This record gives sequence, structure tokens and C-alpha cells, in this order.
Amino acid sequence: MRHYTAEQIAELPSKYRAHFINSCTGFKSANLLGSISEDGITNVAIFSSVTHLGSNPPLLGFILRPTTVDRNTYENLKKTGVFTVNHVNQNFIKEAHKTSAKYDGTVSEFDKTLLNEEYLDDFKAPYVQQSRIKLGCTFENEYFIKENDCHFIIGRIQHIYVDREIQAEDGWLNLERAQTVCIDGLDGYALPQILNRFTYAQPDQPVNSIKDLGS
Amino acid sequence: MRHYTAEQIAELPSKYRAHFINSCTGFKSANLLGSISEDGITNVAIFSSVTHLGSNPPLLGFILRPTTVDRNTYENLKKTGVFTVNHVNQNFIKEAHKTSAKYDGTVSEFDKTLLNEEYLDDFKAPYVQQSRIKLGCTFENEYFIKENDCHFIIGRIQHIYVDREIQAEDGWLNLERAQTVCIDGLDGYALPQILNRFTYAQPDQPVNSIKDLGS
Repeated sequence: MRHYTAEQIAELPSKYRAHFINSCTGFKSANLLGSISEDGITNVAIFSSVTHLGSNPPLLGFILRPTTVDRNTYENLKKTGVFTVNHVNQNFIKEAHKTSAKYDGTVSEFDKTLLNEEYLDDFKAPYVQQSRIKLGCTFENEYFIKENDCHFIIGRIQHIYVDREIQAEDGWLNLERAQTVCIDGLDGYALPQILNRFTYAQPDQPVNSIKDLGS
Repeated sequence: MRHYTAEQIAELPSKYRAHFINSCTGFKSANLLGSISEDGITNVAIFSSVTHLGSNPPLLGFILRPTTVDRNTYENLKKTGVFTVNHVNQNFIKEAHKTSAKYDGTVSEFDKTLLNEEYLDDFKAPYVQQSRIKLGCTFENEYFIKENDCHFIIGRIQHIYVDREIQAEDGWLNLERAQTVCIDGLDGYALPQILNRFTYAQPDQPVNSIKDLGS
């Protein structure tokens, strides 16, 4: 195996290091975050850092770098208190990637891509019409990460919309059936296929396959 | 689409809600965290919350629930200051899942599974021998998430080991080639296939495919 030390990583060319370090922690979720300004200008931007935080209450977290393209999302969710999380589907990965361009706050990415905004149940923030799994969230809290000037944002899930055939009888979502993609690094999009589900692991007990994949 | 409100989510049976909410934010990374106690007892446990935090310095973050099975990992990394992150490969998803059983601190999961511990370059924490991408990390900081009593742990990447054929010329790791899996919910394991890579997105410019998938 090739071995990189911290000193060697620090000396890598900046773009090489960005590609390398962004992919070395494994696959990441692929979500479009929808928000709206107080002036009514919508924003949609791709995020690879959304992750599960807890089920009861239903919480998620994600990382924001307010000095870059994420700034509009940050300002919107701080001012309106709401945002949406929309799964990226294999059918629109290129349109999703385009939302990472640094448009200023006067332009909506919905106008610059083929993604369509959609409003559901009087929720103020726009959803992505094409997504098959969408969450309406309220801003819950933020933690400033002093190690690299990021914010870790906590959102509380208020609404979930999901196609019926995606959900198994035990509540689990078959994300393969939703054609949800994941992200490898800064710019790689991948489509996962479910290999298996396993029963709850207990000490010195066998682990078995769960057959219910939402068929 | 089926719509769940916050009130309906709160009233779901506990296990149903856990499966549902754990899968609704998209695919998650699949990593085994290796650590060692001051007494020399090793620990390896599966985590689905490891995510990229920054490239320079190279930082990652993950969520710990110190009251559950994660406690040994937490105590070890706080006392020794080191831990490893090892990609879960499709060849050992069942062994990886077994590490989620709640063994007490006197038992090493390396003795209870077919996973082998490995020591590289005098790093104190054990790596997983079978993994094709492994990181040696130091504990950098922690943030207490008061919303649900979790810790957000920041690790600094000190060593990266990667099979040579996995890395593209621009530094990107082809995680499909590494056979790295991702996680759907609490217990689903999925194998991603790369669909495409795209060029850096700029306002009003086309986005193109990147052909270098590390061939």
C-alpha cells in the first residue's frame, strides 16, 4: 500500500490534496438543500455532509463553510429558520452538480438548472420537485468548529415526503429503489446497490440477513 | 407521495422510527474505528457518521453516543489520543456489522470477528488488516451536542494507506475500485458504482464529464 504521512499530505498540491482528502473518508450523502431569502429569492445547493444525528427527536447535521458558496444557504436558513433536504437521484446528477457554482444571492439556481422548485403544505422553503425523498427542516442550532472555521448546523425534521414503494414494512427506506446516489470526493457520483441487511448484533450471537428489502 | 408530519413521526413505534429516520438522510459512510485502551485491549466498531470536514488541515468528524456501544471507542481515543478509520469492504460487511454488538471493555471485537488487527509505522491504535483504505488519526477536539447528548468528534488525519491502483492522477480515490460500501439506515449495506465525475462548476458555464476515473 502507498503510505502518506501528515507531512507529505501538507506538501501535496492544493487541488490534489482536496480531491484526495475529500474522498478518503468514504462515500458521502448527496442532498440538495433548498432555502429562500427574506426577499423571496430561492436557493438550491448540493451538500455532501448531511448526516443522521438522532431519531427521537429526528435530527440531522451538516457542515457549512459560510465564506464560500454555502453563504446564501446559511443566511437564508438563519433568517427564515427553515430549509429542505432533497435526495439527489441518478437522473439529475449533472443538474445537481451545477448548483455548486458560485452564483450571488440575486440569482436562483432553480433558474440556472433544470431543477424545479415545489412548495408543499405551506412550508416556506422550496423543495426540489424531482427528488423522490424530501425533508422539511427547521434550524435548531449551530456549533462553530474553530479548527477550520466551519459551522456544524443542526436541523430538526418536520416533514418527510417519500414515494410509498420505497419504504419497507419496518420503516427502512430502500434508497436503491429511490435511485438515490452518493458522492465520492468533490465531483464523483455513484449509484449504490443494496447488498444485504443484517439483524441487530448482540454479543456472541449470530447475525442473520433480513429479507425485507421493501419488496 | 406519502407525507409524514413531525407529530406523526413522534408517534411512530420506536424501532420503525429508528429505521425510517436513520435512512431518510441518504447513504452514509461505512467505517470501522479502531482504538486501544491504556491496558492494551483493542476495540473496533462500525460507524456510519464519519464525514469530511476539511482538507487543509486534513480533518474529519463523526458522532459519538457515549452512553451506548460507542463508549469504549470514546474512552480509548480520549485516553490515548489516537484512533484509526478503516473502510468497510464488500467482502466483510457481515463481520463489520457484528462489531455493533455491545461487548464490554474487557473484550476485543477483533477476537469476536474475523477482522484482523494490524499495526503500522509505530502508530498505537490498531488498523483493520482487511481494509483497502485506512487512516491513522489523532483526537483534535470534541463538541457536545446538547440537542441529543451526542459528541461531535474532530479527528486530524496523520496517516493514509491506500492501494495504489485506487488513486487517480488528480488525487481522487476511486472508491468503487476499493469496493468500499456505504450504509442505508441502521443495517443496510450497499455497493456503489461510479456514474460520472464532473468538472468544477462555474456560473453560466457548462459542466463536463471528467474521464479520469483512475484507470
